[in-house]
Amino acid sequence: MTQMPRHVRDALQDLMVEYAYAVDALSDIDNLLDLFTDDAQVDMTAIGLPMMYGRGDIKAFFDTVFETMSHHFHFMSNYRPESWDGTVGAMTSYVIGMGRAKDGNTVTVQVKYRMECIEQDGTWKCRHYTISPMMPLPGSLTEIHGEA
Amino acid sequence: MTQMPRHVRDALQDLMVEYAYAVDALSDIDNLLDLFTDDAQVDMTAIGLPMMYGRGDIKAFFDTVFETMSHHFHFMSNYRPESWDGTVGAMTSYVIGMGRAKDGNTVTVQVKYRMECIEQDGTWKCRHYTISPMMPLPGSLTEIHGEA
Amino acid sequence: MTQMPRHVRDALQDLMVEYAYAVDALSDIDNLLDLFTDDAQVDMTAIGLPMMYGRGDIKAFFDTVFETMSHHFHFMSNYRPESWDGTVGAMTSYVIGMGRAKDGNTVTVQVKYRMECIEQDGTWKCRHYTISPMMPLPGSLTEIHGEA
Repeated sequence: MTQMPRHVRDALQDLMVEYAYAVDALSDIDNLLDLFTDDAQVDMTAIGLPMMYGRGDIKAFFDTVFETMSHHFHFMSNYRPESWDGTVGAMTSYVIGMGRAKDGNTVTVQVKYRMECIEQDGTWKCRHYTISPMMPLPGSLTEIHGEA
Repeated sequence: MTQMPRHVRDALQDLMVEYAYAVDALSDIDNLLDLFTDDAQVDMTAIGLPMMYGRGDIKAFFDTVFETMSHHFHFMSNYRPESWDGTVGAMTSYVIGMGRAKDGNTVTVQVKYRMECIEQDGTWKCRHYTISPMMPLPGSLTEIHGEA
Repeated sequence: MTQMPRHVRDALQDLMVEYAYAVDALSDIDNLLDLFTDDAQVDMTAIGLPMMYGRGDIKAFFDTVFETMSHHFHFMSNYRPESWDGTVGAMTSYVIGMGRAKDGNTVTVQVKYRMECIEQDGTWKCRHYTISPMMPLPGSLTEIHGEA
């Protein structure tokens, strides 16, 4: 592959961090949705959560998550450029994700994120986001966030 | 806000990492204090620990911490520029903080740091540092580090 | 010390991340070995694991690890340049390392990596790699990976 330019790497890494802050705020769904293209696909099936097509699905999923959870903590590292074709860039990262539901249930996962991103009107957005498990998943994950 | 220049981002990120190494060394309090301005304020009240005004307070707090703890591990990620006015820059990060006291007690917290920094004689220093909890705090935190 | 140039910092940080991905893939030992010089020394004695001299030793150790483990997760942060002499650069990082063996045994460690690196034919390679414990080690570590 062509090597991803540093400014694209920085932009994608910043986008992933923004995602963590937006998800962990547990409020302001629009702030979260703004990080995705209108037709973005989010594939959480590998961890037993839904496949989402477009912002409508993403909003529906996170509306429930924001309603259900009292605490969130998505800790990101090991950023790595995966591909770059001059327009579309993909980056992976490792994530320790923690959550506590309002009912007191808690969950911790160790996963990998892959975000495929594109620039729209000067802003980088994610158009395809996949989560893969790295360590065995706890049973409480689907219990807390619902099944796919 | 004006966008924080890359070299300021790098400097603030490095300062936060230096702080982690200095706190985890559990020795050489001067090395730790050098990261702060003389009049730096450290606000740990949101996690049940003291509000500190100036290096004297910071030294007193960490003298006790260094005396009490056998192990420290402050793991930092999700760096994010918060503000930049051309002179003062603020950056946040996520932190997993772990400690083990000499009496065998252990503690793990998931928190957010915010450091407001300024350059003095060519070196960036923190003048305001705040810790906010992200996940519920364990009871052992104030037991280990003392109450505010 | 002379300050480590940004492009060397980036290269060393990328090498450390590549190492995490290669170790966590639990396959393709050649991909892992390619990150080291032929005569690289790996010192894991501080965590009760072997001292390795050259790629042969490294291959023997990781062949067993890859055979034994079902899951790996090496989460890296707190990158910090340690030294730079114009040719050889050393960088440290903090690591949360998690593993699950095929027999169901699990292990989590909080450690520090130090990688001393050199450029060979345009590619950075590690020639000396040391792991130091930061938090007390669990008994399951040598049980899973074998003793030094």
